[in-house]
Amino acid sequence: MAQRECVRIVEVGPRDGLQNISQFVATEQKIGLIRRLADCGLKEIQIGGFVHPRAIPQFRDIRRVAAETDGLEDVKLTALVPNLRGVQDAIACGLRKLIFFFSISRSHNLNNVRRTPEESLAALRKIREETLSAGIELRVDLATAFGCPFEGRISEDAVLRSVEKTANLGIREITLCDTVGFGNPRLVEEIVRACRERFPEVVFGMHFHNTRGLGLVNAFAAFQTGIRIFDTALGGIGGCPFAPGASGNTATEDTVFLFEEMGIPTGVDLPALLETARHLREILPDVPLTSALSRAALPRGAAIP
Amino acid sequence: MAQRECVRIVEVGPRDGLQNISQFVATEQKIGLIRRLADCGLKEIQIGGFVHPRAIPQFRDIRRVAAETDGLEDVKLTALVPNLRGVQDAIACGLRKLIFFFSISRSHNLNNVRRTPEESLAALRKIREETLSAGIELRVDLATAFGCPFEGRISEDAVLRSVEKTANLGIREITLCDTVGFGNPRLVEEIVRACRERFPEVVFGMHFHNTRGLGLVNAFAAFQTGIRIFDTALGGIGGCPFAPGASGNTATEDTVFLFEEMGIPTGVDLPALLETARHLREILPDVPLTSALSRAALPRGAAIP
Repeated sequence: MAQRECVRIVEVGPRDGLQNISQFVATEQKIGLIRRLADCGLKEIQIGGFVHPRAIPQFRDIRRVAAETDGLEDVKLTALVPNLRGVQDAIACGLRKLIFFFSISRSHNLNNVRRTPEESLAALRKIREETLSAGIELRVDLATAFGCPFEGRISEDAVLRSVEKTANLGIREITLCDTVGFGNPRLVEEIVRACRERFPEVVFGMHFHNTRGLGLVNAFAAFQTGIRIFDTALGGIGGCPFAPGASGNTATEDTVFLFEEMGIPTGVDLPALLETARHLREILPDVPLTSALSRAALPRGAAIP
Repeated sequence: MAQRECVRIVEVGPRDGLQNISQFVATEQKIGLIRRLADCGLKEIQIGGFVHPRAIPQFRDIRRVAAETDGLEDVKLTALVPNLRGVQDAIACGLRKLIFFFSISRSHNLNNVRRTPEESLAALRKIREETLSAGIELRVDLATAFGCPFEGRISEDAVLRSVEKTANLGIREITLCDTVGFGNPRLVEEIVRACRERFPEVVFGMHFHNTRGLGLVNAFAAFQTGIRIFDTALGGIGGCPFAPGASGNTATEDTVFLFEEMGIPTGVDLPALLETARHLREILPDVPLTSALSRAALPRGAAIP
């Protein structure tokens, strides 16, 4: 399969970046942030989750956020849905692409969503029927694909079995998530190669956390193994609660910089994105931005002026 | 040429890490740091520079540092030498391997050492004669190999010409330095491939700065292209004066973590190294450590317990 030399950066900041932050970000600020991100050229943005407000209080205003960003041109706005109720709410709010997630690690899934992976798959089957009849896209995120805070290493077999069960339900976009930053480039290459060979009908994306500094190098290794879809969060926000103080999601600006410097188009306006990162710092004065580019200027002679 | 699956990490913290720090680090602290680094299993450590105290006041105690660390078992201690006088001093102090450096970029060399590259090469010729007759090793560092703060991009041709002139003087270890963090993985692969193909008699090392977050990904790209020698600094200290606030050298602990997680031995005891990074934080209370591992614990199930 010929690989086009460009990548799709999926901005997850308003969702994964904000969901663990205790400070409630005002609805207007969320809407403003999403609009700015769209203006930077990001073509797919996760705006939040249709979850119970007690589970993630940050998303208690998701309906207004969805309503006020609906109709942004040329951008796919997506949201996390943990169950059928969330799916129905999201569809009612006009979302055209949803994301369901479960953990390959049984312990992590039980801890995170209080379900066994089998129960999650049963929920996914119903969700898939719902999105299919509504004619909207469904992507599935497999958490702990490169390691689990409770179980440690996750075997390639375990990853392949979870992908298979997901693909068997007709899912054609699957994201492998390094939930707590356990991946390394060699492991990433092995898992990605095995998944792409075994499931050529599935488009795989990657969701790396930079917990221990390997976010970008894992993204590069995945790119070299054929991956073209990367989840990232502006400012590198979104630390995992199991790794206090650590970096969060791989930063959007650093990932855009990496690929653009290599001559691989992302479609993202990096100076505008850095301006948006400064805006994010104002919205979240108590959250340290961990992106490298939030500390350094662009180089003279950089591919991006 | 068969590549052994291990890497040599060259610790440059006591040299490149400290040289731009205004706080004078007490001689005893420098000696203690170097001893601790050796205890971590680092087999090559740059202890400072034999330079004029007005040029780099931090190294005004280099003779005592060299004398007190002389005889550390199983470790190669090295120092920077800008001229013949430095070489003679270093040899008198018992150093067995020295490092000369110049910039591929004319503007940077003039700015940094007030010489043209031709004048630097003339100095190198005499230094090479001196080290040869003294029977000690000489490594040459080529600065701005991936870009220059004054001239921007540096062409592959310019790099190859500088390598050729250096190799023609009999130098067999050359380090390509990304002085201000301008490299990207594709550029690194191109430059490394060209250099290794054209000069198979030379052993190339890499010296990356993490100014814009690409230090580790550049190291990984270089490793994949056959490089096995990497300069790094504990804590990621050593920011370039041209990029205030930016990260410095690629961090030793992050680089060791990257390779060990991939199953590639470095010979370095990572927990001991992290303990040494905590010690470094005490020595340099005003210098932020920028390594990812200085912010996050090792993962459960990591290759290193």
